[in-house]
Amino acid sequence: QEFMASRSHQPATAVTHIELHRPEKRNAMNKAFWREMVECFTQIAEDPDCRVVVVSGAGEVFTAGIDLMDMASEVLQPEGDDMARTSWNMRRIIAKYQETFSIIERCPKPVVVAVQGACVGGGVDLITACDIRLCTQDAWFQVKEVDIGLAADVGTLQRLPKVIGSRSLVNELALTARKMYADEAKESGLVSRVFPDKEAMLAGALEMAGEIAGRSPVAVQGTKVNLIYSRDHSVAEGLNYMATWNMSMLQTEDVMKSAAASMEKKSPKTITFSKL
Amino acid sequence: QEFMASRSHQPATAVTHIELHRPEKRNAMNKAFWREMVECFTQIAEDPDCRVVVVSGAGEVFTAGIDLMDMASEVLQPEGDDMARTSWNMRRIIAKYQETFSIIERCPKPVVVAVQGACVGGGVDLITACDIRLCTQDAWFQVKEVDIGLAADVGTLQRLPKVIGSRSLVNELALTARKMYADEAKESGLVSRVFPDKEAMLAGALEMAGEIAGRSPVAVQGTKVNLIYSRDHSVAEGLNYMATWNMSMLQTEDVMKSAAASMEKKSPKTITFSKL
Amino acid sequence: QEFMASRSHQPATAVTHIELHRPEKRNAMNKAFWREMVECFTQIAEDPDCRVVVVSGAGEVFTAGIDLMDMASEVLQPEGDDMARTSWNMRRIIAKYQETFSIIERCPKPVVVAVQGACVGGGVDLITACDIRLCTQDAWFQVKEVDIGLAADVGTLQRLPKVIGSRSLVNELALTARKMYADEAKESGLVSRVFPDKEAMLAGALEMAGEIAGRSPVAVQGTKVNLIYSRDHSVAEGLNYMATWNMSMLQTEDVMKSAAASMEKKSPKTITFSKL
Amino acid sequence: QEFMASRSHQPATAVTHIELHRPEKRNAMNKAFWREMVECFTQIAEDPDCRVVVVSGAGEVFTAGIDLMDMASEVLQPEGDDMARTSWNMRRIIAKYQETFSIIERCPKPVVVAVQGACVGGGVDLITACDIRLCTQDAWFQVKEVDIGLAADVGTLQRLPKVIGSRSLVNELALTARKMYADEAKESGLVSRVFPDKEAMLAGALEMAGEIAGRSPVAVQGTKVNLIYSRDHSVAEGLNYMATWNMSMLQTEDVMKSAAASMEKKSPKTITFSKL
Amino acid sequence: QEFMASRSHQPATAVTHIELHRPEKRNAMNKAFWREMVECFTQIAEDPDCRVVVVSGAGEVFTAGIDLMDMASEVLQPEGDDMARTSWNMRRIIAKYQETFSIIERCPKPVVVAVQGACVGGGVDLITACDIRLCTQDAWFQVKEVDIGLAADVGTLQRLPKVIGSRSLVNELALTARKMYADEAKESGLVSRVFPDKEAMLAGALEMAGEIAGRSPVAVQGTKVNLIYSRDHSVAEGLNYMATWNMSMLQTEDVMKSAAASMEKKSPKTITFSKL
Amino acid sequence: QEFMASRSHQPATAVTHIELHRPEKRNAMNKAFWREMVECFTQIAEDPDCRVVVVSGAGEVFTAGIDLMDMASEVLQPEGDDMARTSWNMRRIIAKYQETFSIIERCPKPVVVAVQGACVGGGVDLITACDIRLCTQDAWFQVKEVDIGLAADVGTLQRLPKVIGSRSLVNELALTARKMYADEAKESGLVSRVFPDKEAMLAGALEMAGEIAGRSPVAVQGTKVNLIYSRDHSVAEGLNYMATWNMSMLQTEDVMKSAAASMEKKSPKTITFSKL
Repeated sequence: QEFMASRSHQPATAVTHIELHRPEKRNAMNKAFWREMVECFTQIAEDPDCRVVVVSGAGEVFTAGIDLMDMASEVLQPEGDDMARTSWNMRRIIAKYQETFSIIERCPKPVVVAVQGACVGGGVDLITACDIRLCTQDAWFQVKEVDIGLAADVGTLQRLPKVIGSRSLVNELALTARKMYADEAKESGLVSRVFPDKEAMLAGALEMAGEIAGRSPVAVQGTKVNLIYSRDHSVAEGLNYMATWNMSMLQTEDVMKSAAASMEKKSPKTITFSKL
Repeated sequence: QEFMASRSHQPATAVTHIELHRPEKRNAMNKAFWREMVECFTQIAEDPDCRVVVVSGAGEVFTAGIDLMDMASEVLQPEGDDMARTSWNMRRIIAKYQETFSIIERCPKPVVVAVQGACVGGGVDLITACDIRLCTQDAWFQVKEVDIGLAADVGTLQRLPKVIGSRSLVNELALTARKMYADEAKESGLVSRVFPDKEAMLAGALEMAGEIAGRSPVAVQGTKVNLIYSRDHSVAEGLNYMATWNMSMLQTEDVMKSAAASMEKKSPKTITFSKL
Repeated sequence: QEFMASRSHQPATAVTHIELHRPEKRNAMNKAFWREMVECFTQIAEDPDCRVVVVSGAGEVFTAGIDLMDMASEVLQPEGDDMARTSWNMRRIIAKYQETFSIIERCPKPVVVAVQGACVGGGVDLITACDIRLCTQDAWFQVKEVDIGLAADVGTLQRLPKVIGSRSLVNELALTARKMYADEAKESGLVSRVFPDKEAMLAGALEMAGEIAGRSPVAVQGTKVNLIYSRDHSVAEGLNYMATWNMSMLQTEDVMKSAAASMEKKSPKTITFSKL
Repeated sequence: QEFMASRSHQPATAVTHIELHRPEKRNAMNKAFWREMVECFTQIAEDPDCRVVVVSGAGEVFTAGIDLMDMASEVLQPEGDDMARTSWNMRRIIAKYQETFSIIERCPKPVVVAVQGACVGGGVDLITACDIRLCTQDAWFQVKEVDIGLAADVGTLQRLPKVIGSRSLVNELALTARKMYADEAKESGLVSRVFPDKEAMLAGALEMAGEIAGRSPVAVQGTKVNLIYSRDHSVAEGLNYMATWNMSMLQTEDVMKSAAASMEKKSPKTITFSKL
Repeated sequence: QEFMASRSHQPATAVTHIELHRPEKRNAMNKAFWREMVECFTQIAEDPDCRVVVVSGAGEVFTAGIDLMDMASEVLQPEGDDMARTSWNMRRIIAKYQETFSIIERCPKPVVVAVQGACVGGGVDLITACDIRLCTQDAWFQVKEVDIGLAADVGTLQRLPKVIGSRSLVNELALTARKMYADEAKESGLVSRVFPDKEAMLAGALEMAGEIAGRSPVAVQGTKVNLIYSRDHSVAEGLNYMATWNMSMLQTEDVMKSAAASMEKKSPKTITFSKL
Repeated sequence: QEFMASRSHQPATAVTHIELHRPEKRNAMNKAFWREMVECFTQIAEDPDCRVVVVSGAGEVFTAGIDLMDMASEVLQPEGDDMARTSWNMRRIIAKYQETFSIIERCPKPVVVAVQGACVGGGVDLITACDIRLCTQDAWFQVKEVDIGLAADVGTLQRLPKVIGSRSLVNELALTARKMYADEAKESGLVSRVFPDKEAMLAGALEMAGEIAGRSPVAVQGTKVNLIYSRDHSVAEGLNYMATWNMSMLQTEDVMKSAAASMEKKSPKTITFSKL
């Protein structure tokens, strides 16, 4: 059974749309989800015909989070003859699930995520690993883990504080598990745009994806790689890495093509760039 | 003489309320303050009956900051036979005062701070070491140190830039010593909620503390520890630490208790968790 | 030909005003610009009569960014007998331009930048290396590089994420090259104040500069140095460095002078501080 | 065709022996080598019946290094429409080969490597990723890359300086490509033991492997993981990680079993430990 | 009962001698040991009359390591209602014991340790936290932990690799628990001098301590602080910290006194330095 | 007056020889020395005709270290109206002298240093910033700073621990200021070769320089850059940087030239490489 059934390659040129597609279960993340995410982003990372990814959820809500019923046996009951061995296996499991979302980050193609309705628990881990976050006016977000006795461990506690500016808010969300609605999500910077409804949001997400896809993939993917590098390094380290990266990348023919278009007042989207 | 006279253990179950209590001096931080803060948080860190802390100030204002009259002899006149020796002693003094607020951060129990009226100088050092910041509509904040010839050195310059998102604002506040009022504090993310008055704020703080205290202490305290770890590490480092932390912590019985309550649609607050 | 023609030392005591002055070309950054910036900030760093810097642009706009016509031969056509050698030279060039803006950051004197109209491409690299950002209501900002096939490489990708709190917004700006207007710049924290027009902004910038210039240069410059150190280090590292810094700096006579003025309810600006 | 043909599981209980087996080509590393190393260590990492690995080379020499003839097409001729794209593909290739040896390091089971005769180029990359290095009296080591116009890029420049104590020697070896013989290898700490001939060395390697395999796998693998963590972190970071690791691992039944054996003056090798 | 009974202040001026004194139990580390070490080094850090510390062991051997009989109840049986809670308490215990040796490192006064006979388990943790290691010809060292099912967790795995240059040797010692004798300890750099017997060693240790104690305490203690800082930071970070440290410390009168003595060809030991 | 009078460009092709040339003062480092070192290495870094540098000292000894008589006024008497201001100026001075030796490290061309007789104080700072260290049998080394009341602050405390493997030895040398002779310098790894006399050493240094100069400058200089990067970063960081560096550098024609020579069994020194 496919979890992300409606994945469709080209809503626009070089744009891949991934839809969480288990609407009858509020897109709850079951075993199939984790496996398919890895397959999907591994393939996208290698696919020269894809330059941007849009992620959204089928139906009324983005995702209700992890499907505890489906996952519990695997996640909560690690095997092992003694405490050290169950812990060892638990660590392996956590690392595997962390890796699922880290793959999104390592994929050099930008990922735009569009959220309507609920985005709960594992959903927050997912969206914080994406590059650009959009939502509808009826969206809400919930770091749910403390409600079930867990410290969130597949990315939220690591990425959320680097995604939004208010430390007080991050702590409040993670420690109280309260809901945050669209307006506060926009104010706090979790999302960069709010749309009136899902239809408008998807149109907006695809338009934004089209803008990105129309630009030099050397420039765009180099930008993503270096933005993520900068997050985890000092400014001096980031500059050093950037210079080393660009000593070759600036020699792309895309610069000449883009500069020529710019002088002729043409949009970069009129240029045909080689695949990367 | 007790500085924090009205410390009262249980405004709600497992909640400790600490009140800066020197209202006749606008809660200015005298020698007693620094000593009592250390004692107080050292004890709280060990006390299994406390799961959350609320910090507030008696009277009209949160705090006027350091009490220069009381502290000057100790802080500004270090002993020493030559310049190296006075510097050596000065460093010891600074480190000691820095440590006072770092203890709040190392205490694994979340700290909610509620600010009314003025929060000046050392007050800003204090609140940036807390986890969640609330204030009243009449509150204002002032990084006062440049006014008396000092670069703030017990935490503001280190923590404030990691607490709010706007670097331009941080720099402006620290370099000009101007006041920031409640609305700007909310917009900038320094506080996550503003209340009309002190009474409403304290009620709100205690309600929030109650929400946190009602959840699994294994989950809550693991969340605080890992949020602070994440602040100071790359995402990859944070994920590695989280996996190593949770390989044992996820095996808590609190998960089963919480999951069961969740399936029965009960609030986590109805569960009795073992002490930690 | 001077690029920054109207540099004038004392719009106020101890304040240096630098004006990008090539209004007929929208202050586009030509070869002279890069050379003069280095000379200018190298000199300011050493000049005891300067305590604060204000940077602004002559004419209608702050800057149209790099002057590709003037710079292209140097930037886009590095010499070299083979690919390694052209890359080697390209790296040297990038490092040189990065250094231009890093000099602003290493200069211990605070830099207030005032933006009207357009601030494009290299302009964003410039302002993110300044300490406090102000703008007019008609200002707009554009991370332009992806439009010409480049990942921004002289500071924007490294500093912008540490300057504003919303990661989603940073990514959107850098990946789509869309314009951001004054209101969003204020909300997101890129600028800390918006003024109705250029005249009001310059007055505001000079007033703010005057506030800073009137305070102890030991305190002010120590504050800048430590704020930048904190950005790139953990809180514990930052505190350690601060204590080591202040073990001598707190022994300045400025503290006594400032404390005395404070007790007499005088403004710090009434004090005469020794040069630094 | 298998490269590592003689891999045999149990020269001793819980010891896996991997033999580079292409003696007719001096165990030169061809395409098959790189693929099989990944498969092999991926499997070992998961195999509870393996607790220690011994790596050696068939025939007269350990390895002549990379088989340029076989690898050149893949390594030296990356595809790409322009310079940025060939560079992009080159980076992917380098990262893939780096990963081959990093897998050895990530495998929690200790790896003992035994070197006779030549160990050249890629061979040095390989052995520096192993945990314990042994060699025969006739062994020699050569960081060969500068001889063919390359800076060594799959691990030698990163690991060798952390493997031996003399920086001057590391630099000399890497910059001149001179050979280093067994005695200097022992003095410098590259190897921890020298044996008269291959037979004696293999016997010694297996005996050492047996010593390790006979001890608690929880203790042994935790030791490897934390030793590698310590290499890349400050002492304070390493201690924090260690405490978090051992808060569960020390609760293993292996401690009780080992302590009991110790009190009865029995060797740890007489204990039956559960699999990990 | 005192563990370190024969602590005697002044075998030489400004030298403190600490003797592990439980010779009837081969100086095995019991509960008293850990408590007294903390008290002892806390006091030394503050004592201006002490400038150097010598640590040695009474009787035939330096130490047999931890006294499992005395410590087991505390170390191996942490309390707790479930696995998370026992782990939480275990972590607290480990951190406490780690801290015991980290205090030696944080004490700014150099510590010379002199080892005869056995130095086992916890003894290795102890000596790697000291600054200078000496031993007798009959000394041997053993990282014993894997023999009792433990990964060494109070400092050996973190410090040993930064103390000696051969990574292969470190790994071998920690993974096989084999003994290392004096000659190999000298060759590998674990100790910097070997003496024929205990008497000669103690004389040598005191002479060395005298050399150190006779020099400027500002210079000596600044050297220790910065050597430890350097170990855990990049060269650039270390230089920055050093410059900030010495901007005050170089202004000591000790420089003038020392320079004057140097010009008169007098030993620094003839100078009377102020206490620090 | 030139300090380094006998600088002669081509003792061998592409080799620059720098001689400390103030033999009548035992090559003591006066003001001219510091200025000329900066000029000299700045020029070398840019000079495509230089691929390797040899540094040696004229006369009987390498260097007696800093010339206190000549330097004292500048180094020990910083100006300033109060303690903060003298400290500020002192820091500027230290940073300037640190920079002198850091320039050697940033110069991508390998530096071989050859030491006869004394190498004292500032001499140790100098040689630890070089890449390869050689000495004569009569050489000795002394970290002299504690003897004149200083913690060494222009590189020794930062680099020496990363240059030699024995931490105990580093601490002993820096804390006691004792001399270390050639044999111990070789054993400890400070130097990688000892020669019977100065003549033999210079011949050896030039031969080694010739070996390096004869190889691809792209490979050699990339090796130096990455070895220094590795010293200050984790293995994973080092590998990432290396891959990014080599994505362009491996595309050099030097690889083809070198590979062809290698297959024809010719020495790399027979190849003509383009300048870098």
